[in-house]
Amino acid sequence: MKLMRIGNPGHERPVVRIDDDRYVDVSDLVKDFDEQFFASGVASIRQTVEQRIVAGEWSRFAGERIGAPIARPHQILCVGLNYSDHAAETKQDIPKEPILFTKSPNTLVGPYDDVLIPRRSRKTDWEVELGIVIGKRTSYLSSSDEARASIAGYVISNDVSEREFQLEGTGQWSKGKSAETFNPCGPWLVTADELEDVLALELWLDVNGMRRQSGSTSQMIFDPLFLVQYLSQFMVLEPGDLINTGTPPGVGMGFKPPVYLAPGDTMTLGIDGLGHQRQLVRSAAEPGSPARPVK
Amino acid sequence: MKLMRIGNPGHERPVVRIDDDRYVDVSDLVKDFDEQFFASGVASIRQTVEQRIVAGEWSRFAGERIGAPIARPHQILCVGLNYSDHAAETKQDIPKEPILFTKSPNTLVGPYDDVLIPRRSRKTDWEVELGIVIGKRTSYLSSSDEARASIAGYVISNDVSEREFQLEGTGQWSKGKSAETFNPCGPWLVTADELEDVLALELWLDVNGMRRQSGSTSQMIFDPLFLVQYLSQFMVLEPGDLINTGTPPGVGMGFKPPVYLAPGDTMTLGIDGLGHQRQLVRSAAEPGSPARPVK
Repeated sequence: MKLMRIGNPGHERPVVRIDDDRYVDVSDLVKDFDEQFFASGVASIRQTVEQRIVAGEWSRFAGERIGAPIARPHQILCVGLNYSDHAAETKQDIPKEPILFTKSPNTLVGPYDDVLIPRRSRKTDWEVELGIVIGKRTSYLSSSDEARASIAGYVISNDVSEREFQLEGTGQWSKGKSAETFNPCGPWLVTADELEDVLALELWLDVNGMRRQSGSTSQMIFDPLFLVQYLSQFMVLEPGDLINTGTPPGVGMGFKPPVYLAPGDTMTLGIDGLGHQRQLVRSAAEPGSPARPVK
Repeated sequence: MKLMRIGNPGHERPVVRIDDDRYVDVSDLVKDFDEQFFASGVASIRQTVEQRIVAGEWSRFAGERIGAPIARPHQILCVGLNYSDHAAETKQDIPKEPILFTKSPNTLVGPYDDVLIPRRSRKTDWEVELGIVIGKRTSYLSSSDEARASIAGYVISNDVSEREFQLEGTGQWSKGKSAETFNPCGPWLVTADELEDVLALELWLDVNGMRRQSGSTSQMIFDPLFLVQYLSQFMVLEPGDLINTGTPPGVGMGFKPPVYLAPGDTMTLGIDGLGHQRQLVRSAAEPGSPARPVK
């Protein structure tokens, strides 16, 4: 199944995509594609969806806004430097273990929503990523099979990043990863059973029509099953948690000189089988906004 | 007011503490002390609570479990090295700006719940901290006054930490901060209006009755108003978000040789005006649990 949420921000309703034109509304079956839904298992709605398709009980997409395919999750975990060629472009060593950082869950927005450059930002950057959505509450997974059984499906994430906030201040990366609108997600979640080979997906991202990122999940250092098993050793994963699995080469800070986003830019990005996204970049700045507070 | 949540895990009900013996039940007024409640303002229940006290409509604490005083928040933000004397004991420079890291929100437990040493842990450590609870959705705060108006109240947090996971692996601190039970919180949230001087609070933590940490919020490098204003530049803060503001000297890794927690240990900790906590330390390990996955 391909799960989607359509409607205005905060008022999305859960639907299942049939094709580009049609969907089955399931908002009478589940309140939302949220923690409770994923805990009950995505399969819980499958039979009814199939019956509705057979019975012709579907609707046509009518230009409604498309939201993120999952409700705001309990946590957004991110893995850094997980493509060998991206590690090289940022001049960092290939990590021995997955590098974990986090994004604020309220960064999640729809795949066609605007992305806001934070106030005082000079280095807002893009990162197309394969996102894993967790399907059950779990920890201390002991095998790849257990990890596989813990994954509900996959999504496209744009792990928007402010490089100065992330890397040039004190402390940890989260500071440059958590601004409003910094995690466009979707347009749909494809359930794990429908993705033939998660390690053979092409990823790409264009800025203003110019190809900036291209790569393949075959170049991942740590694959999705390993990542889920690994992260589950350090914390309890909750149903609906989102794990962004790292980005292929071509981020703005890797160019010489670096290239960053400006108001008016457009990002388009996609992953095989997961659809594509398109975001207009705008500024969160306001005239006369104060400088960052200094002690 | 002093807000508390009492009852079994996952079934706590919101109450307002009168004194050691008595409370006013407010579970008919608000579903929980959660994001929705804090968004509506803690003051929304004040008048009814006062009326109930006058009318004698209170109950006696009857040995029920005490949960964290807030429901699982949208995010738990933590500030590192925020006491000058703690920075010295860990041999790190005083930071020029607040160091941000995160804990998984599902680490939140009650003040007297057991703390579990993660599997394969050798360095589980303690950190008594003043926690700030956010009272409104906000970002880009431009003054201390705006920050003050964004704070609902204060709590005790024990920012339990696994030092090997935090510091000796690859990447970011979150990996050693997010294990199950790693954020005992409470017993109550004191609303900001009732805390006379947040910069004059003594903090202490004992392990097995031996004083390990003692300090004062007067030694904070960045005070709570500054922290809230600062963090709001990088992300949107949500009502009910928890910000742990750093720990005073005396953590286990600061001793020579270092001292870490073992099953059977007891932590007791407290902050002036915020009550005290007590946790029995147990092991999450199971016989035959597999080694951490290696690629």
